[in-house]
Amino acid sequence: MKGNFIYYNPTKLYFGTDAINGLDKELPNYGKNILLVYGGGSIKKNGIYDATLDFLKKHNKTVFEDSGVMPNPTYKKMLNGIALVKKHKIDFILAVGGGSVVDYAKAVAELAYEEGDLWDRFFVKCEPIVGKLVPFGCILTMVGTGSEMNGGSVITNEQLKIKDAIMVGPEGFPKFSILNPEYTFSVPKYQMLAGIFDIFSHILEQYMSEGGDSTSDYIAEGLMRSLIYSSLIAKDNPTNYEARANIMWISTWALNTLISKGKSGDWNVHNIAHGVAAHIDSTHGMTLASVSLAYYRHILNKGLHQFKRFAINVWGVSEKGKSDLEIANEGLKAFEKYMQDLGLILSLKELGAKESGISDYVASTDLSNNGFTATTPKDHEKILLESM
Amino acid sequence: MKGNFIYYNPTKLYFGTDAINGLDKELPNYGKNILLVYGGGSIKKNGIYDATLDFLKKHNKTVFEDSGVMPNPTYKKMLNGIALVKKHKIDFILAVGGGSVVDYAKAVAELAYEEGDLWDRFFVKCEPIVGKLVPFGCILTMVGTGSEMNGGSVITNEQLKIKDAIMVGPEGFPKFSILNPEYTFSVPKYQMLAGIFDIFSHILEQYMSEGGDSTSDYIAEGLMRSLIYSSLIAKDNPTNYEARANIMWISTWALNTLISKGKSGDWNVHNIAHGVAAHIDSTHGMTLASVSLAYYRHILNKGLHQFKRFAINVWGVSEKGKSDLEIANEGLKAFEKYMQDLGLILSLKELGAKESGISDYVASTDLSNNGFTATTPKDHEKILLESM
Repeated sequence: MKGNFIYYNPTKLYFGTDAINGLDKELPNYGKNILLVYGGGSIKKNGIYDATLDFLKKHNKTVFEDSGVMPNPTYKKMLNGIALVKKHKIDFILAVGGGSVVDYAKAVAELAYEEGDLWDRFFVKCEPIVGKLVPFGCILTMVGTGSEMNGGSVITNEQLKIKDAIMVGPEGFPKFSILNPEYTFSVPKYQMLAGIFDIFSHILEQYMSEGGDSTSDYIAEGLMRSLIYSSLIAKDNPTNYEARANIMWISTWALNTLISKGKSGDWNVHNIAHGVAAHIDSTHGMTLASVSLAYYRHILNKGLHQFKRFAINVWGVSEKGKSDLEIANEGLKAFEKYMQDLGLILSLKELGAKESGISDYVASTDLSNNGFTATTPKDHEKILLESM
Repeated sequence: MKGNFIYYNPTKLYFGTDAINGLDKELPNYGKNILLVYGGGSIKKNGIYDATLDFLKKHNKTVFEDSGVMPNPTYKKMLNGIALVKKHKIDFILAVGGGSVVDYAKAVAELAYEEGDLWDRFFVKCEPIVGKLVPFGCILTMVGTGSEMNGGSVITNEQLKIKDAIMVGPEGFPKFSILNPEYTFSVPKYQMLAGIFDIFSHILEQYMSEGGDSTSDYIAEGLMRSLIYSSLIAKDNPTNYEARANIMWISTWALNTLISKGKSGDWNVHNIAHGVAAHIDSTHGMTLASVSLAYYRHILNKGLHQFKRFAINVWGVSEKGKSDLEIANEGLKAFEKYMQDLGLILSLKELGAKESGISDYVASTDLSNNGFTATTPKDHEKILLESM
């Protein structure tokens, strides 16, 4: 475990088929005015909306609604949410939905009492938050983003064509998250698969970076093995509770800061995908899937030790009589086969991207230099071209 | 992930060579009167005592000392600590030492404002704590117990010859823990190895129990693989920072409730070892080592699927042409060889136990029935005899 760090994650997780009863313990801790945040209304069809309202009524809350959160929540929508918080003197924000809904609620909760140009201050300059934070919690209905136990929130600035994240410390984490695997049963298969790959990518972004011999890598390998096993079950049997429960749990632990400890972290797959998604509004997990293989092939030589390890410990590639490069390549091939078996979209074109748009995607991308090697805009163009 | 559960762990961990600077952030959060708890005084030789006092002085704290905490802290000592807390109106308890010191401080912090026969109420009847909890934190100098991020505390009742644990919820967890791997460099080798096996045993107690296909098992396997790798380095090079840092981190995550989620948990190896240690005051980790193999051989048939998995995923046993039983046995053999290579004590006799004492050890043991199979006192006698 390299370096000095603080681990602190005070989000309380209620997990299982009766998780929603956690609201009985949590709601009394907060004031009367609740902002209920949700998306397109699927929660009205599957009964989660009614169940949630029952709890809010039981605890005598005054409910204000903020619905219509879109898959890639926009900065404009966020500003509107902030206005609602101020107008109704909101005491607590309850997000009911997937990662986009939680990300949106989190950004509203964190930035509600900040002044000035919020995009410039918090997304561009990454200033620390000084204003009052509105406490918030979530009822998760779709998994993948890990937003239920961290301080990250991804928002799309439609005007500037940039998708960017704010990262806030534990004071900005959800106070609690309600995780009932059954709530994810009705998610359309395409979204389920995209969420599964989002989880995989979160693990890889941390795993495929420097850190020496770190326990974080061993935990990450365990999470990946469990994800591979459960995702292939869920693909054919989306209502298999055991598989969906494991996937939900892995999603949370993939991005709640644990496996980042001692690691440099890369995040270029996300950066590249965000650059594309700022223009084509593609599903996040599928965009990640489309660019991952080209990116990892591009950096494989620089991170050979880790790609070799990935092949052996995650994919069970045998070492006998092979060079490190052969082992590493075999691992990537097994990864590719898994992605195909799962039915992920592995081409940006299928998602609506165009070769003529590459320069725009590159211009919208903020590349990091924390991975095995720095990537230039030229590398980035090549990776996008290969991902088409 | 079977069942309904809550995961909530609000302990803040400061990790790394500058971890002690975390005191600058933490001490201002608490009142003036500090109870400084430590053991036999080794912290005065290695400079950690002086460094700690400097921080306490800098933050204008009034320091009361409670030293001489023994390796298996006694109930009598605990009652004495509680008297000190009340006498000096202690606002915060700071434990500096290993697991025994932290366990002791935790028990004092949790039970300080309870009335009546504390042993009967909290160790025997496991009543919920209703009195005020004294906040506490720790500076860890020895690893193994995992006490730095949970609510468990093991206390020995010398009069009744029983070693038992209280388990308190997150409100009784340390507020913070200072984890500097370098502080563990000067721990005598025997204690270091005992601590390493204590960690291994914590993982196995959870892993070797029911839970279906659970992500917790995959994480546990990662922790065990990392522990095996780092412990064999630390055995020969106790000042290898990377290895000691990984071991410290694994120790915390082995017993902070994470890998227990979705698992029934067994804990009979600990129960059996506690029964022995109530009579012979042996080092905890070595006592666990001495009884583990006989216990696991005893339950192997009932948990064959998990022992097979242990063999393959933790010890790399190949499956080809072997029965499940052969694979499982090969795994236990690899485990035994590792224990021998590490230099653990694998005989209760070497620790001072006697065959003539077995009936006493059995009488002091509280066997659980959460593992793969219930064990009777008769089984227990057999296991102890084999462990001699």
